[in-house]
Amino acid sequence: MEERFSGTVLRRNREEPVKRPTMGEIGLNHFAPYLMNRLMARWNANMSEELREYDMTTAKMRALAVLSVSSSVTINELSVFAVTEQSTMSRTLDSLERQGFIRRQPRVEDMRIRDVSITEEGRAAFEKVWPTMYDLFLQMFDSVEEAEYRAFISTLHKVLHNIRKHEI
Amino acid sequence: MEERFSGTVLRRNREEPVKRPTMGEIGLNHFAPYLMNRLMARWNANMSEELREYDMTTAKMRALAVLSVSSSVTINELSVFAVTEQSTMSRTLDSLERQGFIRRQPRVEDMRIRDVSITEEGRAAFEKVWPTMYDLFLQMFDSVEEAEYRAFISTLHKVLHNIRKHEI
Repeated sequence: MEERFSGTVLRRNREEPVKRPTMGEIGLNHFAPYLMNRLMARWNANMSEELREYDMTTAKMRALAVLSVSSSVTINELSVFAVTEQSTMSRTLDSLERQGFIRRQPRVEDMRIRDVSITEEGRAAFEKVWPTMYDLFLQMFDSVEEAEYRAFISTLHKVLHNIRKHEI
Repeated sequence: MEERFSGTVLRRNREEPVKRPTMGEIGLNHFAPYLMNRLMARWNANMSEELREYDMTTAKMRALAVLSVSSSVTINELSVFAVTEQSTMSRTLDSLERQGFIRRQPRVEDMRIRDVSITEEGRAAFEKVWPTMYDLFLQMFDSVEEAEYRAFISTLHKVLHNIRKHEI
């Protein structure tokens, strides 16, 4: 869509007046949030389509993915980790509980908090979906070498850290 | 949430039986789609909050961003580039047109196609929002050097290319 911007994208040493590059100078294709939004829209649409074959929703899959690697979490934590609104997560958990995929137990120290954990059946349900997810993921990172992938993850961690630090 | 996985995340040389690492082995925090979904949820929530001050929606901002760097696009192209469903984009364009921020003109060669372009007023409206967006973006990539940023963008381009190539 546009030429590569030869200037500095991340222009931090700002004098007065502030000299920000314009969106046009950077170019949409070099503006990371734009690229990531487009990518994730495709990833999510494709996952959602694949999940239909397994009679599963994105919210359910995300909840099971998070729970499969955690001993137990609260619904608050789960909705953050699974990037799903709390009301949606609440309904999702009701449904997963009816399916026998998760259980909710009041915490002994504080009965107001209910810890969510995955059952063996839930684990099996996630494991059935995983190969499809992993293969889509491999396809997505085709031609990306392991070292490049690790560098990519390392940048993502910095960015996630910044979001937390600055609470943006 | 979990330890760093020391094995190969992108396990491509598959023998039979296929030896995929599990989600637990990779770890959510080293699974790029998970990290990107979390990041973009935060970015979008923060942008949407900032935009309220400018009396603008995410869809409007995205449409203006795309149009500010394109001479003219169709509504189909615009809904892909702006990661917005076509029905939402259609309503968004109606509203932007009423505000005098865009114009729609039938293409001379094919009157069924209407080309969308930005007006001077639309450009000014986007320029008013841009410093806020750019500063959020700088904050997001705090401690990421220019070279690392460029490598990150280069990986994103590969991934976007794969999504197109494989039509996932």
